[in-house]
This record gives sequence, structure tokens and C-alpha cells, in this order.
Amino acid sequence: MLFHVTMEVNLPPDMPKAEADDIKAREKTYAQALMRQGKWPHIWRVAGRYANVSIFDVADNDELHALLSGLPLFPWMDIQVTALARHPSAL
Amino acid sequence: MLFHVTMEVNLPPDMPKAEADDIKAREKTYAQALMRQGKWPHIWRVAGRYANVSIFDVADNDELHALLSGLPLFPWMDIQVTALARHPSAL
Amino acid sequence: MLFHVTMEVNLPPDMPKAEADDIKAREKTYAQALMRQGKWPHIWRVAGRYANVSIFDVADNDELHALLSGLPLFPWMDIQVTALARHPSAL
Amino acid sequence: MLFHVTMEVNLPPDMPKAEADDIKAREKTYAQALMRQGKWPHIWRVAGRYANVSIFDVADNDELHALLSGLPLFPWMDIQVTALARHPSAL
Amino acid sequence: MLFHVTMEVNLPPDMPKAEADDIKAREKTYAQALMRQGKWPHIWRVAGRYANVSIFDVADNDELHALLSGLPLFPWMDIQVTALARHPSAL
Amino acid sequence: MLFHVTMEVNLPPDMPKAEADDIKAREKTYAQALMRQGKWPHIWRVAGRYANVSIFDVADNDELHALLSGLPLFPWMDIQVTALARHPSAL
Amino acid sequence: MLFHVTMEVNLPPDMPKAEADDIKAREKTYAQALMRQGKWPHIWRVAGRYANVSIFDVADNDELHALLSGLPLFPWMDIQVTALARHPSAL
Amino acid sequence: MLFHVTMEVNLPPDMPKAEADDIKAREKTYAQALMRQGKWPHIWRVAGRYANVSIFDVADNDELHALLSGLPLFPWMDIQVTALARHPSAL
Amino acid sequence: MLFHVTMEVNLPPDMPKAEADDIKAREKTYAQALMRQGKWPHIWRVAGRYANVSIFDVADNDELHALLSGLPLFPWMDIQVTALARHPSAL
Amino acid sequence: MLFHVTMEVNLPPDMPKAEADDIKAREKTYAQALMRQGKWPHIWRVAGRYANVSIFDVADNDELHALLSGLPLFPWMDIQVTALARHPSAL
Repeated sequence: MLFHVTMEVNLPPDMPKAEADDIKAREKTYAQALMRQGKWPHIWRVAGRYANVSIFDVADNDELHALLSGLPLFPWMDIQVTALARHPSAL
Repeated sequence: MLFHVTMEVNLPPDMPKAEADDIKAREKTYAQALMRQGKWPHIWRVAGRYANVSIFDVADNDELHALLSGLPLFPWMDIQVTALARHPSAL
Repeated sequence: MLFHVTMEVNLPPDMPKAEADDIKAREKTYAQALMRQGKWPHIWRVAGRYANVSIFDVADNDELHALLSGLPLFPWMDIQVTALARHPSAL
Repeated sequence: MLFHVTMEVNLPPDMPKAEADDIKAREKTYAQALMRQGKWPHIWRVAGRYANVSIFDVADNDELHALLSGLPLFPWMDIQVTALARHPSAL
Repeated sequence: MLFHVTMEVNLPPDMPKAEADDIKAREKTYAQALMRQGKWPHIWRVAGRYANVSIFDVADNDELHALLSGLPLFPWMDIQVTALARHPSAL
Repeated sequence: MLFHVTMEVNLPPDMPKAEADDIKAREKTYAQALMRQGKWPHIWRVAGRYANVSIFDVADNDELHALLSGLPLFPWMDIQVTALARHPSAL
Repeated sequence: MLFHVTMEVNLPPDMPKAEADDIKAREKTYAQALMRQGKWPHIWRVAGRYANVSIFDVADNDELHALLSGLPLFPWMDIQVTALARHPSAL
Repeated sequence: MLFHVTMEVNLPPDMPKAEADDIKAREKTYAQALMRQGKWPHIWRVAGRYANVSIFDVADNDELHALLSGLPLFPWMDIQVTALARHPSAL
Repeated sequence: MLFHVTMEVNLPPDMPKAEADDIKAREKTYAQALMRQGKWPHIWRVAGRYANVSIFDVADNDELHALLSGLPLFPWMDIQVTALARHPSAL
Repeated sequence: MLFHVTMEVNLPPDMPKAEADDIKAREKTYAQALMRQGKWPHIWRVAGRYANVSIFDVADNDELHALLSGLPLFPWMDIQVTALARHPSAL
């Protein structure tokens, strides 16, 4: 089941660089593990912003929330979820 | 080059059914032609709304506008475009 | 799987009463059928507005969209969907 | 009497973990006591957010405000209340 | 139990004057009956707008919705309800 | 002359309790003095929020601003003022 | 007593020109009479919009509402009123 | 003196094609005359929308408003003006 | 050339009083110098807010920005500028 | 390919002056290098705000994001990107 997810990241500019780098490294590892499992099939950067647009493919809403709330950057992100259905024009 | 496009359709509820059906049929033909050419690789229905989220893959901004403004439903749609870049965590 | 759905109804005040009554009667029949099937377990009126807050219990996003877009009042409604997950404090 | 309540939690990410854990533990105890009394019959997590949608069943507005303002997380929450009435289509 | 209610009236400017006058006359009669019963203790005009701010004193949410949805101007109004509680500084 | 005033209070959750208590005590004293003088005839708590809706009865805009900007909580409040006129349906 | 008033005019583009011209002529006569009486000391056009920013100088809120609701363009305008007080830096 | 101007065009989809074509032809002639005079040095289409972003170079605010309110499409446009100053980093 | 300027001041409530007083004193001196020169002909306090509405009379956009960005309170203000033109109904 | 970019700068007012000056100096050097390369052909100051409106001319969305996210002020800016296409009325 597909969901459209937007994530805006709001790390404070004065966070120590080592701390920020550590969070980002853990975020990347976490994200790529989900991508390899097929649960996070698309991620795109929003040009000009520290933000992304993603597509998640999960079993249900509970799995979606578990995956999103487990993101290392979760405490600094504003996340919006949109439920997607099959479009009748899709091939 | 990828763009995130949201389309909200606002057909007046009292449009004669034959007219609406004709516009929607032309829209579907037009959209599927672009999908087959790889220019409109993704379209999803927003659950609960007469709206979609789409990804376009085009040569440049001019091609994007030409494709969108040529949509049979264009006069009744509110379209928002977001430029997408490659995300550093993408596989 | 649960979804929170808000529906604002915008019937034009000058719609002939017989036409509006017919749509509303079909809406009620449609809604109560879903309620009896357990797919629409809660509906509440928003005090002071021609609007409701509802909870849907469906198999997936596609079923949710099918049910909502089939509402007789759908062409006159503004619908917002929120995906719900189990809350850790729920009993 | 039923009310629809949304709660967005904005705990600062740099709050010491022990302090946050303590507040959340007290919140859970407080919430579950109200749930057991039937005053807070529904709570759902908003997927992807540190937020919930709840239904309260109280005697009046004063009781509602007393319960909400007594929440251990109240100083960090943005709460919106909507008064609910019986819907004519409800079974 | 008190509620704060704002009402914005959107009568179309081209509604025939006799029709508008009739609706407004019925609105006034309806409103003043509720005022005399003590259910609508305050109404103020918002300076510069065809709008009012009101206080309702009702038994519960259902009575509030019944009174508001019965307003002759209801189909042309945008109404917002806010539940009020006793303020600790009130005399 | 009447004004509708909404006040949202944004005290930082980590303000020392003694400091917050002192400000609130002075606020209450200040507010009740105005209420006894008839200048602040109504105050209601917005259910679920650290906010109020008030009615002020003052000689003019200057007096209104003097009273509001003198509130001990003024530096932490977001205040919105609406000028009220007599409503033609008022008894 | 001074008020800041913004007026956005929304005449339908397909209103017959004679009707629009008549309303605008009456609006101008009405406005200039108030200006000559000193009740409408300033009016400026918002560049690029069919809108104005005005200052009214009236006895009280009731007079302000009477003047504004009497504008020939009132049914087609969105008006916002802001109460002004003397600024401590004013000469 | 430079101004940033955004124009959103809202022609009704059911306007007769001949009427719309005539307005658009007059708009193009009007716009290009200003461009040749150097008063409208830049115009860009907003991708996906019937809208543009423009730069105007005029003597003052009055000239700007005269030019914009004279646009044949003015009655159907929502125009927003932003005053621009020289940027200290500009070459 | 006239501009409408709104200024919202957001001084942190915990700024040391001496520092705040110094900034405000410099602001007042700076503002009154411009008022005496005729460049800031009007300033009004927005009732209930630490904000003002002002009219500036300057040679061009560059002068306007130079004056505004030189305000001692500039780093703590949210400023919105609207270009004003002569209104055809002005006397 | 052209993009419209707005940048709002939110440097904390209490950042040490030397630190702020250093960031701004690096920003200016960085920006002017791009301007000389023709990638940032226009930049204008928004009158009254620490903000600019810019036009970028880049090969694609990835280059745009690389340039913007490399700005020394990027962590303190809110950036909005709009894709521009050729306008049919442009000379």
C-alpha cells in the first residue's frame, strides 16, 4: 500500500557538526535499509530545501508510522502523510 | 529531469455528463500517451479527492509546461509544480 | 485499517429542494449500508457546520477511495483523509 | 457530550531523555485513567507525526478543559477542540 | 454551557431584494426568539463586515447544532464554533 | 464601546515556576481590577488552550491599547482585536 | 478615533458596464462626501489591485460600521478593520 | 524603479472561445508594447499554471498601477506587487 | 511616492531591560528624525499589539529599503511593504 | 533553464557580529562568482525585508539544488523555487 510522504528537516544551525553528522549518517543507513527492502521505493530532494518527497510501500498504517517515527531525524522533522490509491489512468 | 506535480480537478458538478465524460476520455488518452513515452512515469490518486500526485520526466521546464497546459482538463485544474533533485540517500 | 475523514458539504443554496433531497436520501442509504458493514464505524456532525468527522475501517487505500468517491454527495464535498495508527496509550 | 480533540506534541529535541520519559510516563498513566473512566473513549496516532486525534466524552466544556489542561504534556501541546453533535445518518 | 460562535453571511449580491428581505426578516424573528429564551445571550456586529460574533448558552452540543442549523440564513453562512469554559480570573 | 479580544498565552514551558506564578498572580489582580471597573465585562477560557476570548468596554482605541499593553502577560501573548458594533437583531 | 480599513472590490467581470459604472459613480459621491466631512481622511489605491487602504476618523465603532455598510460597493467588498491607537513615537 | 509582479489569470472555462481569444490577443499587443518601451523588461510563465512572474521598470507607483489596471485581462487576474531595491551583492 | 508599511516587533521577553530600553530609545530618535524630514508622515499603533501601521513618503524603493533596514529594531521586526498609488476618489 | 528563487534570511539577532559578518562575506563572494558565471543572472532585494528574489539559469534541477544548498547562508534561509518557462508574449 502506497503513501506519499513529505519530510522537512529543521536541524538547528548551531548543532555541533559532529552531532549533526552522526544523526545524518544513521539516517542514511536507516533509509537505505528500508529502500533495499522495497518499503521506501522513491525519495527525491526538493530543490532548494532541506526536504524530501518520498513514496512508502507498506503493509498498513501502523507499519508506516513505525518506520517514520523510527527515523533518526524524526524529532527534527515535520512529516506529512497522504494516502495514495491506484489512479484509473495508470498503465 | 524530474518534477513533482499535484493536480486538483474542479469540474463543476452541474456540467452535463456527456461533456464531462468527453473531457475525461480525452484526458485519459492524452495522459496514457505521455506515460507510454516515459514522460509521466508515475500517477497516483489522492485518496478521497478528485486529485492526483504525479512525477514527470522531461527535458526542461518548457516541455513540462507544454505538456501540462495541453491537458484536456487544464482549464479546470489547480496545478502545483515542485522541482526535484537527486537525493543523496537514494540507492 | 483506520482512517480519519472530514467531509465539508457545499451544496449550492439555490439547488432545487427535490434534487437536494434526492441526493441526501441516497447519501444516507449509502452511508448506512457501509455503517452496517462495519466499514464506517463512526460519524459525527461538526456543530454549526454542514460537515462531519468520520472514521473508516477498510482493507486498504484503494478501498477507502472507492467508498469515498462513490458517495452521492462526493461532487459537492471537500474531503480530507488522515491515516491513523494505533496509539501506544490506547487500552 | 462528545468532543473531537487533536493534540500536536512539541517536545524540544534536546530535552534530557529522563525528563521526557518521565513526562510521557505520567501522560500515559493520566490518559489511561481517563480512558478507563470512559471519558476518553478513543485515541489514535496520526501516522508520521507526534500527534493524536481523540474523542472525549464529558459532562460539559468545563470538564473538558479541566481534563485537557491537566495533561502532563499540556505545556508542550497545541490542542484544537471541535464540538460534535449526533449525525442524522448515524445508526 | 457557553459557546462562542462567529457567523459570516455570504448572500449573493444579485439575490432579488424581496427574497433577501424575507430571509433576513425570518432570521431576525428566529434570533430574537432565542435571545428572549436566554439561549443566545450576546450578539455583536463585526464592524465593517456582514458578520457577527455571538455567545450561545445551551444544554449541549446537539442543542447548539439544532439551533444553528435552523437559522434561516444557515445555507449562506460560514459558522465557526468554539467551546468556552469558565476562566479562573472571572469574577 | 465594545471590542472583542482574543489572547493566546505562550509562556515558555521551562520558565521557573516561581516566575510564572508571579506573572500569573499579577495578571489576575490586574484583570480583576478592570473587571470590577466594568472595562472588561466578559472573559472566557477557550476549552483546551491557554487562551481566552474577552469583551472590553472602553472609551476609545487608546484606552483599549493602554489596558492591553499593560497586562503583565502582554510580552508573552498574541492578541487580536476586533471592533464590535451594535447588531440590529440585538434586543 | 482612527481605524485602518482595507477594502478589496470583487465586482464580477461580466456585470453590465452601465450597472458597474452606476455603482462606482455612487461610490465616489458617497466617499467624497465623507472625505469632505473629515470622516475618511485618507484613501490610497493598492498598486496592481482593485483595492484600497483607508483611514477613517469616527466617533465610535457604530459610526464606523454605519459608514462602511452604507458604501454602494459594500455587497461586493471584503473589508478588514483594524483599530488604531496613538503611537508613542508620533510627533 | 523595479517591481516584482505576479499575475494569476482566472478566465472562466466556459467563456466563449472567440471572446477569450480576443481578450488574449489584446493582452499580448498591450504587453508587447510595454516590453518594447522597456517598462516590462521580463515576463516568465510559471510552469504548470496560467500565471506569470514579471518585472516592471516604471517611474513610480502611479505609473505601475496605471499600466497594470489597463491590462485587458485585469478584471480576471489576481495581481501581487513587491517593491524591489538594489541588492548589495548585485554586480 | 507613498508606501504602506506594517511592522510587527518580536523582542524576546527575556532580553535585559536595559538593552531593550536602549534599542527602543534609538528607534524613537531614528523614527522622529525621519518624521521631521517628512519621510515618515504617519505612524499608528495597532491596538493590542506591539506593531504599527505606517506611511512612508520616499523618492524610490531604494530609499525605502535603506530607511527601513536602518531601523534599530529591524533585526527583530517583520516588515511588510505595499506600494500605494493615488486613488481616483481622493480629493 | 530558468528558475525563480525567493530567499528569506533568518539570522538570529544575537549571533555575534563577527560570525555574522563572516557568513555574509562568504555569501557575497559565493554569489558573485555565480553571477559572473551567468548562473545567477538576477538578484533583487525585497524592500523592507532581509530577503531577495532571484533568477537562476542552470542546466537542470540537480545543479540548482547544488548551488542553493552550497550557499553559506543556506542553514538560515527559507528558500522557495518556482520553475519558469518561456512566456508566449515575451519578445
